[in-house]
Amino acid sequence: MNRRSTRSLAATPLLVALAVGCDAPPSDRAATAATPDTHAAVLPSWRPGPARDAILAFVDRTTDPASSDFVPRQGRLAVFDNDGTLWCEKPAYIQLAFAIDRVRSMAADHPEWRTQEPFRSAIEGDIAGLAAQGERGLLELLMASHADMDSEAFATAVEAWAKDATHPSLGRRYVECVYAPMIELLDLLRDRGFTVAICSGGGADFLRVLAEDLYGVPPELVIGSRIELAYVAAADDGAAVEAPRIERRRGIGFINDRAGKPVGIFERFGRRPILAVGNSDGDFEMLEWTTSGKGPRLGVLVHHTDGEREFAYDRGSSVGRLDRGLDEADARGWIVVDMADGWSQVFP
Amino acid sequence: MNRRSTRSLAATPLLVALAVGCDAPPSDRAATAATPDTHAAVLPSWRPGPARDAILAFVDRTTDPASSDFVPRQGRLAVFDNDGTLWCEKPAYIQLAFAIDRVRSMAADHPEWRTQEPFRSAIEGDIAGLAAQGERGLLELLMASHADMDSEAFATAVEAWAKDATHPSLGRRYVECVYAPMIELLDLLRDRGFTVAICSGGGADFLRVLAEDLYGVPPELVIGSRIELAYVAAADDGAAVEAPRIERRRGIGFINDRAGKPVGIFERFGRRPILAVGNSDGDFEMLEWTTSGKGPRLGVLVHHTDGEREFAYDRGSSVGRLDRGLDEADARGWIVVDMADGWSQVFP
Repeated sequence: MNRRSTRSLAATPLLVALAVGCDAPPSDRAATAATPDTHAAVLPSWRPGPARDAILAFVDRTTDPASSDFVPRQGRLAVFDNDGTLWCEKPAYIQLAFAIDRVRSMAADHPEWRTQEPFRSAIEGDIAGLAAQGERGLLELLMASHADMDSEAFATAVEAWAKDATHPSLGRRYVECVYAPMIELLDLLRDRGFTVAICSGGGADFLRVLAEDLYGVPPELVIGSRIELAYVAAADDGAAVEAPRIERRRGIGFINDRAGKPVGIFERFGRRPILAVGNSDGDFEMLEWTTSGKGPRLGVLVHHTDGEREFAYDRGSSVGRLDRGLDEADARGWIVVDMADGWSQVFP
Repeated sequence: MNRRSTRSLAATPLLVALAVGCDAPPSDRAATAATPDTHAAVLPSWRPGPARDAILAFVDRTTDPASSDFVPRQGRLAVFDNDGTLWCEKPAYIQLAFAIDRVRSMAADHPEWRTQEPFRSAIEGDIAGLAAQGERGLLELLMASHADMDSEAFATAVEAWAKDATHPSLGRRYVECVYAPMIELLDLLRDRGFTVAICSGGGADFLRVLAEDLYGVPPELVIGSRIELAYVAAADDGAAVEAPRIERRRGIGFINDRAGKPVGIFERFGRRPILAVGNSDGDFEMLEWTTSGKGPRLGVLVHHTDGEREFAYDRGSSVGRLDRGLDEADARGWIVVDMADGWSQVFP
């Protein structure tokens, strides 16, 4: 009884904020003296409004033992897409920038690449030319830059690249192109006993080198696409190698995108998340699976509406296309976060 | 300086124990009043001796900031095989017992199984007949009992089965056939900041239903073999299904055994463990990869020498065969734990 009444009092500002959120414009909400914005302390880069309040209400009711929607810690699994959800994906996926830079750094050993696509376009920075090579060209670029090497050497290469590589237009390093509001949300969820995992269409081995520093997400909670790996303890002629190692081979192990995302999550956790956050139709199945389980569920889509501070895109975009998600979000009860309106700050 | 001198004092009983360990027979060691057995408090089911002391010395030097072998928390990854390392694997893998029981429970719906192998042998409890069906028969039995079903229903079936299923000769339920000394070791490692993962040749989806209760290992730290999974959001005719789900299909996704173990670990963690514990040649590559990295490393093999309290087997055994491991353990510096001699208690 005691805990219950404490919670009722605590819930009052939330209800006020929700009610006010429907009337006042974003810039006025936080300043209204009569309704102190208690949520600003936990999510300072989020503006008051229905998206922030729906997320916080979900966290409250799933973690409050007195709530009928209470979920024990073991069930509090939250999954986040990466590209376009946790960090910037425009003008191209950051991993593609790594692939291009890596091919350039290898070009001296491959004089034939000067005339051979997709390498010619990559070396010359001709993004349109690269796009014209289609999926097959992209795959060749990825394999040339990601395969035929020891996996520990690959991790070292990613780490070294990430130190300096800079976004072409945002005037900051790629590792600084993470979204401050999402970092705050990851921290809040962990504080409230959630296991926070990343479920990316990009390569797991690329992302996990960076994810702990960027997001506080350890490697074992990073789910992503996989290249083929092989354990090598002896050379082809049978002689022992200096040190047994995991080699990256030219081949796709698993594509963790679209219907692959629920599969990748299930393989890792053996259960359905209760919260899924994405930004494109590549995340549709992840949100669909998450929100169709029993009990409290939440799906969130980040809508890239902010062409001034970041990039504005959705329907029909070549990267981060969002059609079906926008069409069905309302009917499915998914929250759509309007970046321009919902975030007071985009980057840290 | 202060921390360093504290550690030196704390290390003294360890050195004494190591020295004594080489002279006195097991039963006398703990009772020797002059050398109080300080290790009994952390590993009470382990008898004093070189195996226990080598393991504890490794934990000490990798977690002591003053040691030249100190490993930061992030690098403290320990991997354990399951069958024969954490729980009993004789007379047959416990997962096979589940498969047989499940086929029996399904037999009423499959009258054709009464005359059709491998089902006939499974239903009649004819283990020799089942073995005669070879790998192909075993795979058919596994698929019939593990595939063509919703993954959440599968987890429920495993959970229900594990509640009552009993070992044929040990007089205890299968879930009580875990090794008490290993549970203590898992707890100790976690207390000392290690991430403790299971790397099993068995099915990850089977094991992770039980691993948190049995070993305190959450699903995301269970690595195992994988069946093919598919996300299903619509029926074959395109109609929406009641609830989108992950279906288990007849096909092997990944075999997490032998050279597959290092690959499975790398896929999950993106790094090499510093401690690996196994009991059969199926674990050889896992120990080889683990102990061939730079810095402090330890490989441990459980040697099933205790035919009285458990089962005695090693070379040439059909399950849990251990040849190469015994041949090479000394040269590779791997610790071999003699169950009969090293463990004062086997089961909890």
